[in-house]
Amino acid sequence: MVCAVQIYEKAELDNPVLIEGLPGIGFVANISALHLIHELDAKLFAEITSSSFQDLAVTTEKGGTRSPINQLYCHKSRDGGRDLIIWYGNTQALTTFGQYELCGRVLDMAQELGCQYIITLGGFKTEQTTEKPQIYCAATDPKTLKTALNLGTKIMVGEIFGIAGITIGLAKLRKLKAFSLLVETTGTQPDAEAAQQALTALTKHLNLKINLTNINLAAEKTQKTLQAFGIIRQVRQKEKKEESPFRWFV
Amino acid sequence: MVCAVQIYEKAELDNPVLIEGLPGIGFVANISALHLIHELDAKLFAEITSSSFQDLAVTTEKGGTRSPINQLYCHKSRDGGRDLIIWYGNTQALTTFGQYELCGRVLDMAQELGCQYIITLGGFKTEQTTEKPQIYCAATDPKTLKTALNLGTKIMVGEIFGIAGITIGLAKLRKLKAFSLLVETTGTQPDAEAAQQALTALTKHLNLKINLTNINLAAEKTQKTLQAFGIIRQVRQKEKKEESPFRWFV
Amino acid sequence: MVCAVQIYEKAELDNPVLIEGLPGIGFVANISALHLIHELDAKLFAEITSSSFQDLAVTTEKGGTRSPINQLYCHKSRDGGRDLIIWYGNTQALTTFGQYELCGRVLDMAQELGCQYIITLGGFKTEQTTEKPQIYCAATDPKTLKTALNLGTKIMVGEIFGIAGITIGLAKLRKLKAFSLLVETTGTQPDAEAAQQALTALTKHLNLKINLTNINLAAEKTQKTLQAFGIIRQVRQKEKKEESPFRWFV
Amino acid sequence: MVCAVQIYEKAELDNPVLIEGLPGIGFVANISALHLIHELDAKLFAEITSSSFQDLAVTTEKGGTRSPINQLYCHKSRDGGRDLIIWYGNTQALTTFGQYELCGRVLDMAQELGCQYIITLGGFKTEQTTEKPQIYCAATDPKTLKTALNLGTKIMVGEIFGIAGITIGLAKLRKLKAFSLLVETTGTQPDAEAAQQALTALTKHLNLKINLTNINLAAEKTQKTLQAFGIIRQVRQKEKKEESPFRWFV
Repeated sequence: MVCAVQIYEKAELDNPVLIEGLPGIGFVANISALHLIHELDAKLFAEITSSSFQDLAVTTEKGGTRSPINQLYCHKSRDGGRDLIIWYGNTQALTTFGQYELCGRVLDMAQELGCQYIITLGGFKTEQTTEKPQIYCAATDPKTLKTALNLGTKIMVGEIFGIAGITIGLAKLRKLKAFSLLVETTGTQPDAEAAQQALTALTKHLNLKINLTNINLAAEKTQKTLQAFGIIRQVRQKEKKEESPFRWFV
Repeated sequence: MVCAVQIYEKAELDNPVLIEGLPGIGFVANISALHLIHELDAKLFAEITSSSFQDLAVTTEKGGTRSPINQLYCHKSRDGGRDLIIWYGNTQALTTFGQYELCGRVLDMAQELGCQYIITLGGFKTEQTTEKPQIYCAATDPKTLKTALNLGTKIMVGEIFGIAGITIGLAKLRKLKAFSLLVETTGTQPDAEAAQQALTALTKHLNLKINLTNINLAAEKTQKTLQAFGIIRQVRQKEKKEESPFRWFV
Repeated sequence: MVCAVQIYEKAELDNPVLIEGLPGIGFVANISALHLIHELDAKLFAEITSSSFQDLAVTTEKGGTRSPINQLYCHKSRDGGRDLIIWYGNTQALTTFGQYELCGRVLDMAQELGCQYIITLGGFKTEQTTEKPQIYCAATDPKTLKTALNLGTKIMVGEIFGIAGITIGLAKLRKLKAFSLLVETTGTQPDAEAAQQALTALTKHLNLKINLTNINLAAEKTQKTLQAFGIIRQVRQKEKKEESPFRWFV
Repeated sequence: MVCAVQIYEKAELDNPVLIEGLPGIGFVANISALHLIHELDAKLFAEITSSSFQDLAVTTEKGGTRSPINQLYCHKSRDGGRDLIIWYGNTQALTTFGQYELCGRVLDMAQELGCQYIITLGGFKTEQTTEKPQIYCAATDPKTLKTALNLGTKIMVGEIFGIAGITIGLAKLRKLKAFSLLVETTGTQPDAEAAQQALTALTKHLNLKINLTNINLAAEKTQKTLQAFGIIRQVRQKEKKEESPFRWFV
């Protein structure tokens, strides 16, 4: 299977922008995407699982289960903004191979819906917190870069890890436009402050009216979700776990 | 190949329940499935091997060989119970990738036979043994959860590892109903006591008449089988073996 | 690709026996197969490479190159013996996944040529050398086992690692007959003595007339070949090398 | 996907020679290929990404991004030389599996364009630098070897790692002619001197008129590019990094 996709509804969108919001440094993208979904009341239209996700389920307080998953939400523009596809999830893939497969699959789906423009979000790890964290950017082409810089960002210097980075690369190969917004963060905790910066720039660019006062709720929910999957704990301990045979015994 | 399937006979079943019983914590699922197969005289109809299983064969006392394998057995209901597909085996897959592939393939086969309902079994690791181990549960949806709770179980808190967990997740994505029964166990030995609890709840739910007096035989056979494959030894030593080149020496 | 196959000639064989002779414990199978190929002047008809082999080439003294490869040779019976397919190579696959894929592919090719009977060779690791090493066996079924026992072998107790083991398992799943001959060896060096035992039993069973006086030459060539690929050195040092990024820089 | 290919233009070539120039020991091949592309003003006609490349993007000083990629350039002969396909890139694949897949894919593309002749370049690690580093060679067949030896090379003794090595192996299996030129280098830095030796032999063989005075620029650009991807740093530290779950957090 590699990736198994369940499409719940064929979204009808007009030239939509894909916004990537998976867990990563400071969980900036993840919090931002979740808050966006809540505030826009975006609609879940597809779910993706991958054989490169963790092989477990976590239980909810009410006896339900949650599995490692990626989701696509859509938002039809209401007042002059752009249509959106929001790529949310509780995990990235565990292997390089899985990352590329996942990203390629999501880009396929987005392109089928007419998407030609992508924004990836992320954190840029710094030693110290600043009061108003700076946003850095990188883009597939000079024109798109100018758009990103006009949002008050600076040019990013360094590596963009994981899905946020390879999405830019695969987009370029597919002749799509894309830029990445990376917000300064110490990266050890879900960083609501950094997510707020990302969303301020993003909503300005997309002409979206989003209330940011409740962003802490999205950060708390992100913390809770990712702790249940062992992702936040893992980051804290900075332990490198290797895949080992018989891992299905504790 | 990833998974290679050999179907010996097309089972004719009416709305069957799939019961997952692979080796895992305390070997609860494995013992339960084996005992069920014996007592119901369930019929082997398919075997599955995977390139994510160990690359070896183990010999039997009589000069035969056993290979890492998963098997599907079917049971036609006799007196008002449900038709069953029992998913048995001497191993889970060694990699996350293999786990998802294996699970996806078995669900495909079960769905082709009309299955829309799945029960996964497992152990829930505790430090101490209790006289009558508690059963915990989690389910794909509130209605199915209620069914599980009515069997005297409590809501599970934590992670469900391996096939027992991802089966619930993949079932949900396929709009199937599923619940998991997880029995307290110290998990270091094949735990006949815990398996007995699992089967008591399971047979009550499925309206099956099963004699549980000989469950120790299933536990002993499980111990012997899994020792031959080095699985039980591995668990005890808690050594992490990594896949290394040239592992076919020594 | 996983496996890439080059078939040089369509072999016309009558109910052939597949003999597996890849490098493994004591290199018993590898020496035996090589000697068999030389003595029977068997004909190379197919070569197989796999993306699970080492990613390198080794040079020969004359400026040529040798790559990790598996080869199939055929031998048309001359005087009442059986037609043969000899599975020779300078490596097994480096991963469990690759082992199953390789084995599955070779069985496909053998079955296309009418093969329904397989003999796998190997070493059985012992602490001490004995003057006339004992042969152990295991088989897919009692009748085939009896044939193997009649060659003066004893029933094998333990695990059969690598291709020698999974070939038996996959053969069984495909309803083919197979047995394994495993000769006692300390396993640290190419063991001509053990290979001679294997060939004595094998040729008796297959009614082949083979001169065994030059088997040391096959052992020496095996040593030289596998040293060039770093396989024998690796075994001696017993170092576990893990696949690491950027391994293409020494 | 494994490999995703974007072909920008169908190159029309006459019996072209494929020259492999990916990063490796001493970056000899990489510098040589880059200099060749510059001097010949060779035309980019295809790009290849692989799910076995690193999952990141690196930023450029101007806010653009570069991703792990392989590229194919073509050069139409002008004055009696051979048409060329130059295989350039900023990375090899991270796994053995990926290496074979990548190489197989590039050979497919080259063969579609009529290529039947391949030259792979590389470094041959030595402890000490020499003033005029020696070139070593190996070839698929004696005739091709003779051609290589006539360029003032000596017969290579040892292993040819990575793409340079498996390309020779896969070429042989496909009945293509190929040789490898391996230049002495200490291998710790991009070695312009060694690349110059490689290009001197290569251009002599291919009857190409190339100015080598600016080869240092290609070496510097190679250094800069591969440092940005963390490849040169990695080599220096000789640290073995293993793929670990959640690597998208740093």
